[in-house]
Amino acid sequence: MLELYHGEPSANSMKPMLCLKEKGIEFVSHYLDLSKFEQHSPEFVKINANGQVPVLVHDGAIITESTVINEYLEDAFPAPALRPKNLVERANMRIWSKFVDEYFCPALSILGWQAIIPAFVKGLAPEEFEAKIARIPLKEQRDKWRTAAKSFTPEVLAESRRKVSVSIERMEKLLEKSPWLAGSGYSLADINTYSMVAAMPRLMPDTVNEKSTPRIVAWLAIMNARPAVKAALGMGRRPLPDLSVKVS
Amino acid sequence: MLELYHGEPSANSMKPMLCLKEKGIEFVSHYLDLSKFEQHSPEFVKINANGQVPVLVHDGAIITESTVINEYLEDAFPAPALRPKNLVERANMRIWSKFVDEYFCPALSILGWQAIIPAFVKGLAPEEFEAKIARIPLKEQRDKWRTAAKSFTPEVLAESRRKVSVSIERMEKLLEKSPWLAGSGYSLADINTYSMVAAMPRLMPDTVNEKSTPRIVAWLAIMNARPAVKAALGMGRRPLPDLSVKVS
Repeated sequence: MLELYHGEPSANSMKPMLCLKEKGIEFVSHYLDLSKFEQHSPEFVKINANGQVPVLVHDGAIITESTVINEYLEDAFPAPALRPKNLVERANMRIWSKFVDEYFCPALSILGWQAIIPAFVKGLAPEEFEAKIARIPLKEQRDKWRTAAKSFTPEVLAESRRKVSVSIERMEKLLEKSPWLAGSGYSLADINTYSMVAAMPRLMPDTVNEKSTPRIVAWLAIMNARPAVKAALGMGRRPLPDLSVKVS
Repeated sequence: MLELYHGEPSANSMKPMLCLKEKGIEFVSHYLDLSKFEQHSPEFVKINANGQVPVLVHDGAIITESTVINEYLEDAFPAPALRPKNLVERANMRIWSKFVDEYFCPALSILGWQAIIPAFVKGLAPEEFEAKIARIPLKEQRDKWRTAAKSFTPEVLAESRRKVSVSIERMEKLLEKSPWLAGSGYSLADINTYSMVAAMPRLMPDTVNEKSTPRIVAWLAIMNARPAVKAALGMGRRPLPDLSVKVS
């Protein structure tokens, strides 16, 4: 039996949701409302000591880390294949996914948190906020929540914007060579990246748009049309963020 | 034909050196002296645009990122297997290697750079130093070199020491369950971690020692005795760092 603990179909949560839908694998969905801090509840921390989604549970075995979960799904359910057969392309899939995890995603996350977290914590009295923070297992995450609730520094925001721009430029350049991110076919590189980039034309229209990133826009259109993408997006519980909220 | 561009057998360079020696694969060694900034030379930047070692070249195909190189070697040369057959153990191998790459290694690197880089740049006039820095392709690396040449801030050093301690505690705890880091056998998790931890009893004896981390010390002794480890260490060109240089 497969179970997935996840939030909305975006960012890290979407990566295994999309992989499962592509493979047509049945799974039990356990939805956690991140705006209600449900991932830090004592019950969930028993499942993942880091208090983070997504988590896959396969016949009782717990697998964390979205990039690793997708490699695990590929190992356990190899058809249809989402890792390139060509081993150099497979290495490129992993190099790109690693770049997304270590460089692009942390920078994008700071811009996203800057835009979203103040709304999450708006209604909380200071002692309620501190009680929520105290449940977060990782010190790095407690620090990030406390900072985001007020504001990241202008220097951190500028550096994050620079890194997001560098990432988008690299992605646009990769798509010059092939319609897919890691060689000749659709792969986990596309899944892992779509989960980060899907909302960018709406939230960061100055960075991802028809004029400056035509190949990313074309790739997004092809991705958006995939039945598995529609199925994963269809699992969303909350409406899309207000279009007037721009990440900048 | 296999070629490896690498520095001394430690840290990231050692990871593929050790993997190749375990598999008994012949390869052409291209040594770069990092203390002479050879990884930033225009010739090498043509091979890896990031100006970083190690790099594997297999029949002309360039593979970067030491963790990915080892997965590639496993895909291309599956015997002897260094990925667990059990898929949950395999996922644990990747989760641990990812933690080493994203959390442990960056923190350890700051402490290492703080100890080593001032000696690398001691003899350079300011304009020579700036000329060296100007050749570094990545902005993040230029910033890190400039900072390390003087000093990281006390806050950054304290946070790095904290993260190294957290990492060593987690590692000691993992080794309570098994003599290996990812399940029942020797795997890429051990290779990827040894390359970071091997020098710690000498350089950080307050952190890794018989009394506070007996399981890591026992694991290191077993690792040190492996013929492949000896063969990889035997490729070192420079003497081991002065024992009086302590990282703290």
